[in-house]
Amino acid sequence: MPEKMIPGKHLWFFDYFPGGDVGLFMRISNMVHSQQTRYQRIDIFDNPTLGRVFALDGITMTTDADEFMYHEMLAHVPMFSHPNPVSVLIVGGGDGGTLREVLRHPGVKRAVLCEIDEQVVEAARQYLKTSESFDDKRAEFAYENGADYVKRFKNEFDVIIIDSTDPTAGEGGHLFTQEFYKSCFDALREDGILTVQAENALYDFGWTKITHRRISSVFPIVKAYQGFVPTYPSGYWLYIFASKNIDPVENFRYDDAKNMSQKLKYYNEELHKACFVLPNFIKNELKGKM
Amino acid sequence: MPEKMIPGKHLWFFDYFPGGDVGLFMRISNMVHSQQTRYQRIDIFDNPTLGRVFALDGITMTTDADEFMYHEMLAHVPMFSHPNPVSVLIVGGGDGGTLREVLRHPGVKRAVLCEIDEQVVEAARQYLKTSESFDDKRAEFAYENGADYVKRFKNEFDVIIIDSTDPTAGEGGHLFTQEFYKSCFDALREDGILTVQAENALYDFGWTKITHRRISSVFPIVKAYQGFVPTYPSGYWLYIFASKNIDPVENFRYDDAKNMSQKLKYYNEELHKACFVLPNFIKNELKGKM
Amino acid sequence: MPEKMIPGKHLWFFDYFPGGDVGLFMRISNMVHSQQTRYQRIDIFDNPTLGRVFALDGITMTTDADEFMYHEMLAHVPMFSHPNPVSVLIVGGGDGGTLREVLRHPGVKRAVLCEIDEQVVEAARQYLKTSESFDDKRAEFAYENGADYVKRFKNEFDVIIIDSTDPTAGEGGHLFTQEFYKSCFDALREDGILTVQAENALYDFGWTKITHRRISSVFPIVKAYQGFVPTYPSGYWLYIFASKNIDPVENFRYDDAKNMSQKLKYYNEELHKACFVLPNFIKNELKGKM
Amino acid sequence: MPEKMIPGKHLWFFDYFPGGDVGLFMRISNMVHSQQTRYQRIDIFDNPTLGRVFALDGITMTTDADEFMYHEMLAHVPMFSHPNPVSVLIVGGGDGGTLREVLRHPGVKRAVLCEIDEQVVEAARQYLKTSESFDDKRAEFAYENGADYVKRFKNEFDVIIIDSTDPTAGEGGHLFTQEFYKSCFDALREDGILTVQAENALYDFGWTKITHRRISSVFPIVKAYQGFVPTYPSGYWLYIFASKNIDPVENFRYDDAKNMSQKLKYYNEELHKACFVLPNFIKNELKGKM
Repeated sequence: MPEKMIPGKHLWFFDYFPGGDVGLFMRISNMVHSQQTRYQRIDIFDNPTLGRVFALDGITMTTDADEFMYHEMLAHVPMFSHPNPVSVLIVGGGDGGTLREVLRHPGVKRAVLCEIDEQVVEAARQYLKTSESFDDKRAEFAYENGADYVKRFKNEFDVIIIDSTDPTAGEGGHLFTQEFYKSCFDALREDGILTVQAENALYDFGWTKITHRRISSVFPIVKAYQGFVPTYPSGYWLYIFASKNIDPVENFRYDDAKNMSQKLKYYNEELHKACFVLPNFIKNELKGKM
Repeated sequence: MPEKMIPGKHLWFFDYFPGGDVGLFMRISNMVHSQQTRYQRIDIFDNPTLGRVFALDGITMTTDADEFMYHEMLAHVPMFSHPNPVSVLIVGGGDGGTLREVLRHPGVKRAVLCEIDEQVVEAARQYLKTSESFDDKRAEFAYENGADYVKRFKNEFDVIIIDSTDPTAGEGGHLFTQEFYKSCFDALREDGILTVQAENALYDFGWTKITHRRISSVFPIVKAYQGFVPTYPSGYWLYIFASKNIDPVENFRYDDAKNMSQKLKYYNEELHKACFVLPNFIKNELKGKM
Repeated sequence: MPEKMIPGKHLWFFDYFPGGDVGLFMRISNMVHSQQTRYQRIDIFDNPTLGRVFALDGITMTTDADEFMYHEMLAHVPMFSHPNPVSVLIVGGGDGGTLREVLRHPGVKRAVLCEIDEQVVEAARQYLKTSESFDDKRAEFAYENGADYVKRFKNEFDVIIIDSTDPTAGEGGHLFTQEFYKSCFDALREDGILTVQAENALYDFGWTKITHRRISSVFPIVKAYQGFVPTYPSGYWLYIFASKNIDPVENFRYDDAKNMSQKLKYYNEELHKACFVLPNFIKNELKGKM
Repeated sequence: MPEKMIPGKHLWFFDYFPGGDVGLFMRISNMVHSQQTRYQRIDIFDNPTLGRVFALDGITMTTDADEFMYHEMLAHVPMFSHPNPVSVLIVGGGDGGTLREVLRHPGVKRAVLCEIDEQVVEAARQYLKTSESFDDKRAEFAYENGADYVKRFKNEFDVIIIDSTDPTAGEGGHLFTQEFYKSCFDALREDGILTVQAENALYDFGWTKITHRRISSVFPIVKAYQGFVPTYPSGYWLYIFASKNIDPVENFRYDDAKNMSQKLKYYNEELHKACFVLPNFIKNELKGKM
């Protein structure tokens, strides 16, 4: 059968990685939603292999197939490293996946999602499964620039998670500044932990290193860890863990982690330690920046 | 500026030509409408160069930039060849472009648009400029298989225009059969004229030749003519003119054509004659089939 | 069978039309030759539908499937309009297709191919069938900027054919200046004729109009004509005929054209006239520029 | 500047992942080598971000940017788990990268590269840096089907490494059978270790599971481990370690690994342990198959 006869082979999404010379292509079997907001372009579509795909400004944010890999690693590493996280701030993350993971922790009393673009939250609510926790009573929404929001708090949160878009996309840039990390430090309580998504070591390693250096100038304990996210550039994602006094490998709540990991698809108590073991080329580059 | 920062470079439409090894790609700057109907997939989007694009099953049907080239040639060649067309049938053509051209002729009292897929007409009404004549009182709509519809009429129409999708797409196949052409002959009045879109001489020439042969077995006068339609495969389109007794070059209403062509963008009275002059490789192939 | 198992589905050529939002894609089933010369990038590959494809700087120059359409119309319209062309200059056209058509005329004693990039001629000789006339004794090669070359001649050629790349590509720009057309006028003999490829009416119409206006300021008789070239942008190509005193429709050698057209695949004596009949939107735009 | 003016934006490589609906695209800035051998199609080209890329049948095998990630993990995990590897067999791996890593071990006296396609080795020698160890005197080449080759040996090798193409590509299928793994067992000496590349957990997880099950039916100790290979489907690669009696985490030569890892870019003694810690969804799926 000639290809022209196959309905649905004609719409494709191209996620160009930095530089524009490599990227991921995905067939759009069903175009679900396409919208230009004040801040960015939202596209939501279905792909036969990946399920529902959510993109901002042409950059893949989540897919049904692998969003759990990203969200579990971003949320549970800091959450289980903290002795008792009660108050949590998520900056970005309008799709809701990180919020969902944070709210799995029964001790959490308040989880603020500070997302600059209300339209993203609305689109997620309507079209994405990651939004399942939006109606949880502990969830609170702030539609505001995260850098401005954080500045208003002192000694308020146990854990802050930066679930931002790329520094080069839309309004993401101000979430990668030293000033912002300082505000986060101040907004954290005594045992406070900050975790940020920190790009990847192939296409955006410059940003990883800058981020690592800037956070290291603010927090006493800073460690990078890794996870796999197949639909992000390179498939191999880096995160930075920063804290006032907690070491994520020595101090984490092993038994609680082991217990919850029964219900998780990616994170487990052994991975919590193993994810801090990095390949030489990453370890050496980041060491030089510390 | 890296390409990943350019919003809107990430959605593309690929119109594969028969064989699947060549085709036209178009950037989707705005996804307007995407729908799977009972019969086919409708996609409507905007492209910076071509304007609004309308596709069925991944095959480009109309674009703002060149739809007039196709519709004017499909409609006015038969309409000005006929001495006085009053009753016209358009089979297919749910976008409305052919209807619009037919209704420019003040002598027309009734123009039936027989389109199998009502959803196409609805989408056109909502999103496409070609639908501008849908509310003309002389327009009549039949949502039915064209082959079935035509069979019910004898000696009814002055001009029948087949504005179908490709023979290989959706429900278009039955509009390319000898039986169908025989039904058209019977449904035409004494001076009746049939015109059909007949594909192209590079990617679908087999269909052009089959169509030409089948029509030639039913009508005494059959002539192919050409026109340019940049967004159709090869950009060079063939049409077949068939009639009971009228020769389109000898007998056409030159003065009326000249008069109306003041308002048209493609068709004119000189082109009416010139379009029947074909390149050797087409002329020779079609001659062999007569 | 999954697509990844189909050898040869993985290399594709994208010919972006001006603006970069529309273009033609072709599968590369066999990569024949790829080279960066001093002037431009040469790519030669095979496509299952189009045969061998030759591109400069990512712009399709010839394919086996349709090169004859372009070359026959570019060469035979001026050659049969001239009463007795003996000395012919081709500027550009390093693939050899135009030369081949010119040399079909037995009266031609000398045909100069002035191509700036010797590597193009070498690649054509090795890989392209269009080069079949390179060893004809009447052929002469000058590897030089066409604008400089023409300047050195007065009253030398009967026909000059500009078979250039696009004005925006490589070194093609200087072949679209008024000064160059003046040099061509001076280099032509009394009945001299100039023909230039003049882009298309959808993606490059600005260039067509500029070219038409500039030539019109130099030559007394200027007429645009059309042809079908499926693998060029829009598939609908425009050419400009200019002469010192010959009208291409009134004065052409009909019988000679008819005789030779037996051996040609596109051009014939009827098309010679019909190709000067243009759609309204082109006719009107060019009229305004005369 | 319009894109059509950018030389080199027109050739692209599309690596379709299984299913054909997702994949990686790479711009070809320079086409180096393209060849159809008796067994497969070889393509070698340059990409601005990834450097030189080597593909078989449209599937990426190596790129300058990340080949070390794959080869170091495939080779050093078994090599440092074995107490004293002297004789090593590599099946596949015609690019030479695995051979290079194996030969870093000074105790190795003989390393056989059994590659079915001699043309791959020849192309690697000419165009790929991974071939740097081809002239090492300890290297031996066998151009033969790996399944046939292994069958001829009993108690011969300390380590066998299967560096094959995908099971669905070319001749790779017979390297994924239970019979083949049995032959490997027999060809291994007492402390023998087998390592195989085992696809990925997103696009080819079915193959990973089949491979794991088949090897588990032959070897007493079988453990999967992970690594990051950005240009392979999903970026997250799985390997299977199998041995007659050695546990790769308990028994490996930590000090030797630590010493060599000074010179390596990916592998290190900590990763040797951490790479066996897998995400839940992989761990659970493979557990079920044991």
